[in-house]
Amino acid sequence: MLTLYDYGPSGNCYKVRLLFSLLRIQCIRIDVNVKKGETRTEHFLKNISPNGRVPVVIIPSDYVHKLSNVENSSTTSKTPTDSTSSSSSNNNSTNEQQSIILTESNAILTFFSDGTPLYPSNPIERAKIMQWLFWEQFSHEPNFSSLRFWITLLDKGDDPQYLDKINERQIKGYEALNVMEDHLNKEDWLVANRFTIADIALYAYTHCAEEAGYSIDSFPKIKSWLRRIENMPGYVPIDD
Amino acid sequence: MLTLYDYGPSGNCYKVRLLFSLLRIQCIRIDVNVKKGETRTEHFLKNISPNGRVPVVIIPSDYVHKLSNVENSSTTSKTPTDSTSSSSSNNNSTNEQQSIILTESNAILTFFSDGTPLYPSNPIERAKIMQWLFWEQFSHEPNFSSLRFWITLLDKGDDPQYLDKINERQIKGYEALNVMEDHLNKEDWLVANRFTIADIALYAYTHCAEEAGYSIDSFPKIKSWLRRIENMPGYVPIDD
Repeated sequence: MLTLYDYGPSGNCYKVRLLFSLLRIQCIRIDVNVKKGETRTEHFLKNISPNGRVPVVIIPSDYVHKLSNVENSSTTSKTPTDSTSSSSSNNNSTNEQQSIILTESNAILTFFSDGTPLYPSNPIERAKIMQWLFWEQFSHEPNFSSLRFWITLLDKGDDPQYLDKINERQIKGYEALNVMEDHLNKEDWLVANRFTIADIALYAYTHCAEEAGYSIDSFPKIKSWLRRIENMPGYVPIDD
Repeated sequence: MLTLYDYGPSGNCYKVRLLFSLLRIQCIRIDVNVKKGETRTEHFLKNISPNGRVPVVIIPSDYVHKLSNVENSSTTSKTPTDSTSSSSSNNNSTNEQQSIILTESNAILTFFSDGTPLYPSNPIERAKIMQWLFWEQFSHEPNFSSLRFWITLLDKGDDPQYLDKINERQIKGYEALNVMEDHLNKEDWLVANRFTIADIALYAYTHCAEEAGYSIDSFPKIKSWLRRIENMPGYVPIDD
């Protein structure tokens, strides 16, 4: 069974929960409280993720073993040898596969959606999905997640010490919303005229933009795109 | 022929130039001056990239056509229909493929390295590469590129107005260097015990960390990893 280290309010964790629900992937959820610093403990940094963030998925050895067998039957690639959850030495034998620790929400999305309609195999479509996923992490997510954390979770929306950095991020956040609105004015979905992991990645923080102090009233195309996602079979809300 | 919209000092652009040199991929380079705002002109935002950033690669229709034929012969995916460089309507016919505009340095790396040893096909290795690429864009690059821009290009290293934000980023930047040093203490390369696009992505800003005000003297494993990359056949420096 997969294990997900999870924090309920986190949009990045929600991406994984939403994907798993849509694809009916089962996992054990272990809640860690980011606000209480539970991702920064010595135990977490040493044994779960040195980057001190969630989500983290632990992929057990039997899952890895199965994938490696599929892989070895069709290509000449080596079996994975890095970043195992055990401290024992690396070993290329598939019989001695160890569990894998996978971090970074968008890396988790690509891994688990591979081979499904949510991550089409056409190389140009994949490239455009990648483009949106990297854009999300650099130009979108930082302008929503931090604001939402400061305003909703820390209640710093009126704190003069936060004013400048809130304003700076909001300008960039509205730029990001404009990029999305322009795109969704031409297409119903971000890539390939269908629902993909690019939509999941961007949905996570866009759908709770108001908790980050944004108004999305003037973004009708984004609003209807959000509703389309919420009507997908298997959809779950962030607080599920 | 591919066209690369390029800015010499940019580490993100350098990733693409380095990959193209290693893989002997030819392109036409069009220089845009970020410092002079040339990625923020109405023309650039409307016709090249609405995100106003470089690198941007224009992939001509014959290249797209070739890829789609390969793809169509082995899968049932549709041909690409989004984000073309023409304003004419989308069309699924491969005979009417349009050129593709591809942005986001790490998306460009994955697209052009696919099928080469720089981007292994093993799913676990791919997942770990993705993990480093997303980590680079969120936890690494912002703490190096901005500092380098402020300190080296804008000469604001001693400006009191920049002090707080320089300090804040440096703390996070050193955290990122520690994550890399710990990993490179166990492995010679970031993923799969071999040189991949994960190393290219992290090399770009790490190798000029000193221009961003960092000292890497206390990171011996990073230093030797940098030297290994510089000895790769086809390596080119950032100012080439």
